[in-house]
Amino acid sequence: MINKLTSKIKKTNAPIVVGLDPMLNYVPEHIQKKAYAEYGETLAGAAEAIWQFNKAIIDTTYDLIPAVKPQIAMYEQFGVEGVMAYKKTVDYAKSKDLVIIGDVKRGDIGSTSAAYAVGHLGKVQVGSNTYAGFDEDFATVNPYLGSDGINPFIDVCKEHNKGIFVLVKTSNPSSGEFQDRLVDGKPLYEIVGEQVAKWGEQHMGDEYSYVGAVVGATYPEMGKVLRKVMPKTYILVPGYGAQGGKGADLVHYFNEDGLGAIVNSSRGIIAAYKQEAYAKFGAENFADASRQAVVDMIEDISTAIQNR
Amino acid sequence: MINKLTSKIKKTNAPIVVGLDPMLNYVPEHIQKKAYAEYGETLAGAAEAIWQFNKAIIDTTYDLIPAVKPQIAMYEQFGVEGVMAYKKTVDYAKSKDLVIIGDVKRGDIGSTSAAYAVGHLGKVQVGSNTYAGFDEDFATVNPYLGSDGINPFIDVCKEHNKGIFVLVKTSNPSSGEFQDRLVDGKPLYEIVGEQVAKWGEQHMGDEYSYVGAVVGATYPEMGKVLRKVMPKTYILVPGYGAQGGKGADLVHYFNEDGLGAIVNSSRGIIAAYKQEAYAKFGAENFADASRQAVVDMIEDISTAIQNR
Repeated sequence: MINKLTSKIKKTNAPIVVGLDPMLNYVPEHIQKKAYAEYGETLAGAAEAIWQFNKAIIDTTYDLIPAVKPQIAMYEQFGVEGVMAYKKTVDYAKSKDLVIIGDVKRGDIGSTSAAYAVGHLGKVQVGSNTYAGFDEDFATVNPYLGSDGINPFIDVCKEHNKGIFVLVKTSNPSSGEFQDRLVDGKPLYEIVGEQVAKWGEQHMGDEYSYVGAVVGATYPEMGKVLRKVMPKTYILVPGYGAQGGKGADLVHYFNEDGLGAIVNSSRGIIAAYKQEAYAKFGAENFADASRQAVVDMIEDISTAIQNR
Repeated sequence: MINKLTSKIKKTNAPIVVGLDPMLNYVPEHIQKKAYAEYGETLAGAAEAIWQFNKAIIDTTYDLIPAVKPQIAMYEQFGVEGVMAYKKTVDYAKSKDLVIIGDVKRGDIGSTSAAYAVGHLGKVQVGSNTYAGFDEDFATVNPYLGSDGINPFIDVCKEHNKGIFVLVKTSNPSSGEFQDRLVDGKPLYEIVGEQVAKWGEQHMGDEYSYVGAVVGATYPEMGKVLRKVMPKTYILVPGYGAQGGKGADLVHYFNEDGLGAIVNSSRGIIAAYKQEAYAKFGAENFADASRQAVVDMIEDISTAIQNR
């Protein structure tokens, strides 16, 4: 799957991923109205609204991008109905040949991580049958529990040609509270990064490992260091756009081959029509605004890489 | 909710929680057969089997215990159908007046943690209505992202009288890989523990905080230290029984008032009938074996506390 991701990034020339993190207030009124007319102002109505919203954005952007990253929290907020919309979104994006990065940030003790890995990336045995539960291509994983929490994911990845991105340095303002603490003079995120590189050696693709890392766009100096600590690791970079990251900040997340990083934008793409720059599209044409925002993001990052 | 938990612990005299972490191989054959007869060997069949298994265990133990802790990974492995069984389990346990600790180990950047908090502990707005998605009473939360990831949970807890347990020192063998790293001579778990105590001051119940901590039974010396670092923090203690923790190891997780900790057992209770000690019950009477295992666990821990 890391090979597919790399090859799709080369083909689209777009090292970006669209974060499908729908809040109801991003969903234009006409879509909400239609969903509520059918299902009422219920959890099922909300789930229908975000699903239709996602579908329209996938339909107008899938030819430009290698991957989407649905953030499962935005679906879990609507309970079981929301989780059903998550699954529909995963399946639909897959039908468009997009790589699916499930932003689930799971991670637990060994036997429990194994269950998460099976549910999101693998197949579960029921009697004499096997089934894929959510069937994303990649999942994000939290490293706080150490190797026991990661290895079950790697085992499932090996079996099913899937991958993970392990949180190393997150994009949020307080990420330094624990991640930046110095251990023998070295920040914890760097120690986690070294471990990610080691875990990655267990499951290498052609050029990069199936074990990737999450490093926020909002900390470019740390990104530069982590790029060197984890040379064969694909870096998933959240925090571009709405959270403040810019293309020029991100050049050092990429290797000299122009690969090695994939930059996520969520709000900046899916709620583009709400920004002044794309207001001309109007709420009716929100998906066209998203397409334009994708084009502009690719241009911003490509230019920055060319000028590095 | 921390007041309810404390009062139920006093009333039952049982500082324990039953972990509802069903693996299919824990579920006796007669239950699996019945579920598959109705739904086939499908995800729906598996979900029905684990739900019937849980229901029987709740029915035979609810009068002895204050709380249950369903581990959502064990349900997510069966995809959407599994998540539906999780929700049924939460609702049913609640109908028996049990406190529900959703072992979900969520945690993300601020806006995303807010969505998780809303989905699991709060209510989401859909048009002019509000709905509780999963509606557990407590959720477990991962601290790796710092205060941004925790505060949205605390906000929702304040609004809806709910609580959280933050991972401090986990029970698994490799938990020390990052958690034990020394920062200025102090292990990271202790720094996280200090922060949990601070977060907890923001939302105090009568005796204890709504912000609890997870500290594994498998590290009793660290539990002793952390008890002192977080005097007003309820400690959720996994790792008893199948993972190796014993009552005598756990006395220092409790305060002098005999409160302040709640010990979880999952496999040791729900799959008791598979152990030699309870084999006499047989698979048909698996739930009675679970009840006996609960009685024995309460005895083990109470005796240890009395003899401290």
